[in-house]
Amino acid sequence: MSATARVVAISGGIGGAKLALGLYRALPADSLMVACNTGDDFEHLGLSISPDLDTVLYTLAGIANPDTGWGRAGETWTFMQALESLGGETWFRLGDADLATHVERTCRLAAGEKLSAISEDFCTRLGVRARVVPMSDEPVRTMVHTDEGILPFQRYFVQNRCEPRVTGFSFHGAGDAHPSLPLWEALLADRLEAVVICPSNPFISIDPILAVPGLRGAIGDCGAPVVAVSPIIGGRAVKGPTAKMMAELGIPRSARAVAEHYEGLLTGFVLDESDEGAVGDLPCLTTRILMETEEDKTTLARQVLDFAGAIADKVR
Amino acid sequence: MSATARVVAISGGIGGAKLALGLYRALPADSLMVACNTGDDFEHLGLSISPDLDTVLYTLAGIANPDTGWGRAGETWTFMQALESLGGETWFRLGDADLATHVERTCRLAAGEKLSAISEDFCTRLGVRARVVPMSDEPVRTMVHTDEGILPFQRYFVQNRCEPRVTGFSFHGAGDAHPSLPLWEALLADRLEAVVICPSNPFISIDPILAVPGLRGAIGDCGAPVVAVSPIIGGRAVKGPTAKMMAELGIPRSARAVAEHYEGLLTGFVLDESDEGAVGDLPCLTTRILMETEEDKTTLARQVLDFAGAIADKVR
Repeated sequence: MSATARVVAISGGIGGAKLALGLYRALPADSLMVACNTGDDFEHLGLSISPDLDTVLYTLAGIANPDTGWGRAGETWTFMQALESLGGETWFRLGDADLATHVERTCRLAAGEKLSAISEDFCTRLGVRARVVPMSDEPVRTMVHTDEGILPFQRYFVQNRCEPRVTGFSFHGAGDAHPSLPLWEALLADRLEAVVICPSNPFISIDPILAVPGLRGAIGDCGAPVVAVSPIIGGRAVKGPTAKMMAELGIPRSARAVAEHYEGLLTGFVLDESDEGAVGDLPCLTTRILMETEEDKTTLARQVLDFAGAIADKVR
Repeated sequence: MSATARVVAISGGIGGAKLALGLYRALPADSLMVACNTGDDFEHLGLSISPDLDTVLYTLAGIANPDTGWGRAGETWTFMQALESLGGETWFRLGDADLATHVERTCRLAAGEKLSAISEDFCTRLGVRARVVPMSDEPVRTMVHTDEGILPFQRYFVQNRCEPRVTGFSFHGAGDAHPSLPLWEALLADRLEAVVICPSNPFISIDPILAVPGLRGAIGDCGAPVVAVSPIIGGRAVKGPTAKMMAELGIPRSARAVAEHYEGLLTGFVLDESDEGAVGDLPCLTTRILMETEEDKTTLARQVLDFAGAIADKVR
């Protein structure tokens, strides 16, 4: 488990987890690190909840709920029903098995263990031979600036179903946060062959990661190609509020706009064959990037890795 | 829910809850308060767990597990299985529905709500028209002194299955604790007609309650008859380690020894027809006290209440 990663994937939740799973299957065991956004993390019912870490963990462990994209497969909901009868808060759905992750994590954090160590141990326990780690061990909280005020992320995302109009974002705590040690070491290691920015929401999944002081620079200077995969296909997001946010922020809803958002960071960009190819002189791979089947995920992952290898000489 | 109680039952878990249920059924709604031992309470997995409060609550709400005597009926165990797969502590079994009680209680305690207020609200939510309250809102923790050292109660009771030889008990925090306000008010109220000490373990269920400064005196001076029901029948405890503890402490395993343990506090004593009747000049009711059926519980409760009424003139 402590092998240095050959590939670091930078990921949010659902969309990112799909490509992370493809990379996990395409690479030899112990070769992948997935660095997850923790800007969505929050404290709820006294529990420390890390939605993106858990989505990636469950996905790689093969226990994710394929219907919802979050939570665990074959879940039961007894806790939630009982909580409702006691007048507890039920707007954020917590399944009985999923709850064990939050209770155990909260318990270990209280005992002084780092989130990254807990996350790596969960991988081991669930038989995942990749390292799923947080961007930082310190709390960073994404705040969504909207026409209804500044909302903590989960209030915006779950409770308000992304309905308020977005005007911007801020990342509470980011200024004082440090990259998690395993991620930092992986980015500095000679063995690193590629950094893959997964097709996650640039504003609320990737930007919080890049907001941790030192991480943007370390990714840019890692010596390996940095390749982003577009979360936008034909002007639409596969899932989630990416396209809606771009419209509200006055940004063209296009793959090219995503590449421009990452300006200065990328060695290459992967976009869908239905989208326009040219993004300045940035090397681009145009292919089918919609991941509908399990095979799609592995196929795209292999193409992304091959593309990264092919443009390795373009790295600064 | 805020009506002053006509009867206050002093109770531990399983055995006490049986008579508490009988009293609940024998009395008009809103007439009963059950003051529960919280010496068994502990923090586990970051959660505040109150086993006796919950056993009584679940019993009166009709949702207790009839097979185990603890936990809820129709329970699922998904959380526990998932926790085990993550390497969490599983020696204390927490069902999925039961867990909601602990999470919600922990959450409300952290927000500053008192345990007694939370317990009364849980009664209301679950449709219980009695007031189930803790002996104190402050933590009191029963420590069991054994030949293997001093053990926190649940370590002795659950993890070591009551196997170590008992030499005594202490109640951490009792010296600084205060009676919970609802219990205190009930004991001072003119309306009070009886205090019933349930057939719970005298050492680990009732003594922690009497150890809260002021409570023993307030019970003795409440102006209503104080009647205890023996937890020992024919030299044996119906359930739990009472008889084993008496033997280890060098106390005769008899109903009479229980009455003597409560010396100076009782107006009357209820013991089984299979046991010897005379306990000094203390008024005694000798009847069938084994509660096997639902009817047994109500029948015994009625007899206890009638007996208390009959000896009301003996109150100091």
